[in-house]
Amino acid sequence: MKTLTVDLGERSYPIHIGHGILPLLPEKLAECGIGSPTPLLVITDSAVAPHYLKPVEELLRGAGYPVTTSVIPSGEASKSLEMLDELVKVALEAGLDRKSVIIALGGGVVGDLAGFVAASYMRGIRFVQVPTTILAHDSSVGGKVAVNHKLAKNIIGAFHQPEMVFYALEMLRTLPPREVRSGLAEVAKHGLIWDAAFVEWCESNADKLLALDPEALEYALYTGCSVKAQVVGQDERENGLRAILNLGHTIGHALEAVSRYELLHGEAISIGMVGSAKLAVRFGRDPVIYETTKRLLRKLELPVAVPSHIDTSEVMRTMMYDKKFKDGRTVFVLPEAIGRVEIVRDVPVAWVEEVVEELKREA
Amino acid sequence: MKTLTVDLGERSYPIHIGHGILPLLPEKLAECGIGSPTPLLVITDSAVAPHYLKPVEELLRGAGYPVTTSVIPSGEASKSLEMLDELVKVALEAGLDRKSVIIALGGGVVGDLAGFVAASYMRGIRFVQVPTTILAHDSSVGGKVAVNHKLAKNIIGAFHQPEMVFYALEMLRTLPPREVRSGLAEVAKHGLIWDAAFVEWCESNADKLLALDPEALEYALYTGCSVKAQVVGQDERENGLRAILNLGHTIGHALEAVSRYELLHGEAISIGMVGSAKLAVRFGRDPVIYETTKRLLRKLELPVAVPSHIDTSEVMRTMMYDKKFKDGRTVFVLPEAIGRVEIVRDVPVAWVEEVVEELKREA
Ligand SMILES: NC(=O)c1ccc[n+]([C@@H]2O[C@H](COP(=O)([O-])OP(=O)(O)OC[C@H]3O[C@@H](n4cnc5c(N)ncnc54)[C@H](O)[C@@H]3O)[C@@H](O)[C@H]2O)c1
Ligand SMILES: NC(=O)c1ccc[n+]([C@@H]2O[C@H](COP(=O)([O-])OP(=O)(O)OC[C@H]3O[C@@H](n4cnc5c(N)ncnc54)[C@H](O)[C@@H]3O)[C@@H](O)[C@H]2O)c1
Ligand SMILES: [Zn+2]
Ligand SMILES: [Zn+2]
Repeated sequence: MKTLTVDLGERSYPIHIGHGILPLLPEKLAECGIGSPTPLLVITDSAVAPHYLKPVEELLRGAGYPVTTSVIPSGEASKSLEMLDELVKVALEAGLDRKSVIIALGGGVVGDLAGFVAASYMRGIRFVQVPTTILAHDSSVGGKVAVNHKLAKNIIGAFHQPEMVFYALEMLRTLPPREVRSGLAEVAKHGLIWDAAFVEWCESNADKLLALDPEALEYALYTGCSVKAQVVGQDERENGLRAILNLGHTIGHALEAVSRYELLHGEAISIGMVGSAKLAVRFGRDPVIYETTKRLLRKLELPVAVPSHIDTSEVMRTMMYDKKFKDGRTVFVLPEAIGRVEIVRDVPVAWVEEVVEELKREA
Repeated sequence: MKTLTVDLGERSYPIHIGHGILPLLPEKLAECGIGSPTPLLVITDSAVAPHYLKPVEELLRGAGYPVTTSVIPSGEASKSLEMLDELVKVALEAGLDRKSVIIALGGGVVGDLAGFVAASYMRGIRFVQVPTTILAHDSSVGGKVAVNHKLAKNIIGAFHQPEMVFYALEMLRTLPPREVRSGLAEVAKHGLIWDAAFVEWCESNADKLLALDPEALEYALYTGCSVKAQVVGQDERENGLRAILNLGHTIGHALEAVSRYELLHGEAISIGMVGSAKLAVRFGRDPVIYETTKRLLRKLELPVAVPSHIDTSEVMRTMMYDKKFKDGRTVFVLPEAIGRVEIVRDVPVAWVEEVVEELKREA
């Protein structure tokens, strides 16, 4: 087991990562101030529950915690105010008070939703992230929690840091392959924005990662979490540096929405990162950035092209809803080199549109 | 105009109080870092809008602010997740971003709801309280914002401090008399927990307060806000001292709920404060506490008795839902003397029930 710290003064917390560590959960809870018999509410989803809810529940009950559980439907649609309402009902009926703790057992959907329940129930109670997807190495770290609005993703939320992230990698074994690949896109992103050597390592070890090789996976997720933790530690509330985590996300978010979420988050940002690399090259950066980015993502079996049925002008309209466009220009996070990004403030919207068009012919 | 400060380090903010100060709003916004042309969303309710929305809007537009407005239905039912959903839609359609500011123009309902919209929209944007009720001298200070759940009041919320409280007392002139009295209950509370001399002053000046005499009102609301600001300054997140603000609220909340909100908040806590005084006397405190409390509240034309049709056992059940009862005992904020309270941890539930019964025969 490896342990990292997200360094945020009195809101600091540990990230424990390892294979086969699930039995240590009660001990690690106690270490971060959540001793038994603190009442716990475990929130998970309908795809995770059949595999892991019972063992987790038994483990916690066995350690003396009173446990209530709630299973939400798997999928992005659960990140809603309706589900918040429902979970608050569960919390009230279970008698949760300000000292109780919520355990988010699942991927980014469960983490974001359960985190927002914790942020707002009684104006904020503690919570713990127990991620079960690869993507959640990203979403479980950093305290951004939210639900969606019909008109915009993640628009209703909070910054609410967990007490701990407990990442038992043995739970990744049941993850559908497509979700594995999608999650690896955020691993690649953490390399591309921060660590050129890690990008090289990922390329060389792509096969192992796709096969969920325990050692490779632990190293990759440890490194990914560590990049995220460093960025968040320097900019908790996204006033500056944290923006670099959005590499590939401007185009990616628009593609997700326009595809009606047929593209998974990681798939969409994979394409978005190729787009960012293309834009960087237009700004005179070394074409090797584009080649390396694309090669890495293809090795990870991620899409690098915009699906042909997607309408470029709809993508552009969706992007504009999300972002400020002023005098035909906008802000983008772009690679400066492999492992380093910059914020570019005057990207011509016409270039973005051309790049989206080119991405349709990418192969 | 008088100005107070809520002292919370980097989250400190001013409270401006005075008669006829509305025209100063733009200037005071600018002073606290909200310069024109910051986009503003003014949220108000259907009873306040006809009197004040247009003047406020014109004032702000005249000072160069882009202004969007939204009018919610007057009443407690608007403090809901549905209304949050609706206001987020308004904010999105108005193009509000992380630098925009919400103005809560109204009583506690508007302040609590608009404050929670500000706390959660894009994970938190700035907001300003422009209270228009007497009760809101309490609710607008301290950063507690929330909406209700079907099963519990104020259960979904945040601690989100405003950038400023701007209290233009000329807007109180249109307040219905029953709301005036209800608001004065919280003024009385601030005296009873903190300032014996102010209790005496309130008793002597009750007629003036009820008649909304400008000078008396300004003094009373300044003093009330100042008590609240001091308590909040010492305990922002209700880990200790802030609990004293709940004098009368345990019984009060239960009465509000059981009366199906026929009792206004201030009316219910008025009765609750008489109940607390009775409990204090049972614990051996000077009966003068009870007499003074009751005399003050009656002078303010507030109810001091539980309406006879209210069922005591329903009140007890509702209270138990809200509060921890252990071994037949519970925690209460009780007066120790006029102007001073204590937290009593072993109040017999049987005594509470007897007091609620006695309160039905109170005159
Ligand atoms: N808060 C943040 O900083 C942040 C960052 C990135 C993404 N996100 C959010 O994360 C969400 C995406 O996260 P995700 O990709 O983890 O999605 P997810 O939670 O929907 O999980 C993907 C799918 O895998 C299933 N699943 C999860 N764990 C499993 C397991 N161990 N075995 C079998 N099936 C399993 C889920 O039920 C779901 O069907 C999005 O809502 C996105 O907005 C948040
Ligand atoms: N956040 C806190 O710390 C805190 C503290 C106490 C109470 N509260 C909350 O405050 C709410 C009660 O506040 P309230 O008593 O101000 O209620 P309110 O906002 O409902 O106002 C009372 C009534 O007066 C009307 N009104 C408001 N201003 C007016 C004006 N100037 N002229 C004419 N009509 C006017 C309103 O439309 C409403 O009908 C409750 O929801 C309570 O939970 C919050
Ligand atoms: Zn992402
Ligand atoms: Zn109150």
